[in-house]
Amino acid sequence: MDSVTALYRAHAESTVVACLSFHYGSKHNDREIPFAKWHADRLGIPHLTIPLAFIGEHFASDLLQSGREIPKGHYEAQNMQKTVVPFRNGIMLSVAAGFAESKGAGGLVIAAHSGDHAIYPDCREDFMRAMAEAIRLGTYANLTLLRPFIAMTKAEIAAEGHRLGVEFSKTWSCYVGGEIHCGECGTCVERREAFQLAGLPDLTGYLVSGPIPDKPD
Amino acid sequence: MDSVTALYRAHAESTVVACLSFHYGSKHNDREIPFAKWHADRLGIPHLTIPLAFIGEHFASDLLQSGREIPKGHYEAQNMQKTVVPFRNGIMLSVAAGFAESKGAGGLVIAAHSGDHAIYPDCREDFMRAMAEAIRLGTYANLTLLRPFIAMTKAEIAAEGHRLGVEFSKTWSCYVGGEIHCGECGTCVERREAFQLAGLPDLTGYLVSGPIPDKPD
Repeated sequence: MDSVTALYRAHAESTVVACLSFHYGSKHNDREIPFAKWHADRLGIPHLTIPLAFIGEHFASDLLQSGREIPKGHYEAQNMQKTVVPFRNGIMLSVAAGFAESKGAGGLVIAAHSGDHAIYPDCREDFMRAMAEAIRLGTYANLTLLRPFIAMTKAEIAAEGHRLGVEFSKTWSCYVGGEIHCGECGTCVERREAFQLAGLPDLTGYLVSGPIPDKPD
Repeated sequence: MDSVTALYRAHAESTVVACLSFHYGSKHNDREIPFAKWHADRLGIPHLTIPLAFIGEHFASDLLQSGREIPKGHYEAQNMQKTVVPFRNGIMLSVAAGFAESKGAGGLVIAAHSGDHAIYPDCREDFMRAMAEAIRLGTYANLTLLRPFIAMTKAEIAAEGHRLGVEFSKTWSCYVGGEIHCGECGTCVERREAFQLAGLPDLTGYLVSGPIPDKPD
């Protein structure tokens, strides 16, 4: 829901040359990517899926099909660390930078937000600032890395998406990647909490939708 | 010859967990990668080839099989700009960083050198400094990006490789990627010049080995 909202916002503000999904062997890639394509098609923006199968084969993370079970709990809880795919955003941003330079774009957009900061080092603003500098210096076009949601909460993103007409029932969060959202993994909990805090209806079907666990101290 | 020399040096100085080659659709990947593996095998270091076929399919560069003919001339001449693969080093370093973090390594090594600076933005020290910072901040292990040759010339790398016992006849430079080195493309010219300046015999077989073009002003 973050990336799709960022796409709608970028589309509203400027010309989007293309959007990229990455198939890297996570348990939920096959759920999230068709939705990404659905939104791109709706907006008339070319959508490409970049295969990064080597991540699933060689990297260590429970987010991957090669990993263990997805932990349950709050998105910012310590046990979510097992779902980190090492330097995933560095890899995705680098690929997107090379692609953007090849297509003559002026920059690229990532939808990392403040709720990601607790667990994911490659979602934090200090990482983004260094990566933005590397992308600017490492390209002829001096590409700009935009991170419009870096200081926003997921609830604020939900409100922004709602304003932009995003059909959230056609977005996928659940890391487990089953038939429907599990409702209990970190990212399902985060999703449910976001709609609740934003005061928006949550049309997602969840397998389990008990009380939302507290955010850790 | 730069990367292989960096591998020998890293092996002499510390424990090398693995080395990575990238198959990204360049004209010379199939020539250089078997040599990389040969050296890794000789040193007893695991060698992996990471496929990045999307670069050949979607990126714009004459280095790629999908591009036009490789230009002839000095490595630092302006027409070599066509052989830049956009943000290639950013992509390779990001993949290597994620891999290194997955394997519990403490850092990674790239063999970019001062002769690369004229044409390739993602070989310059200001890019490397920003990328190193992104890799440090974006990983739990705070990985270190080592660039031992960043201020050295290729002639100095040739001398260093010679000292370390690198068999340079089992390295590949030529961007054209034919049966033997063409002798006329930027990287062949750079290779010939390096051995000459280092005062070392050049055992490479070249298709054409006329006078070495002057370095541009």
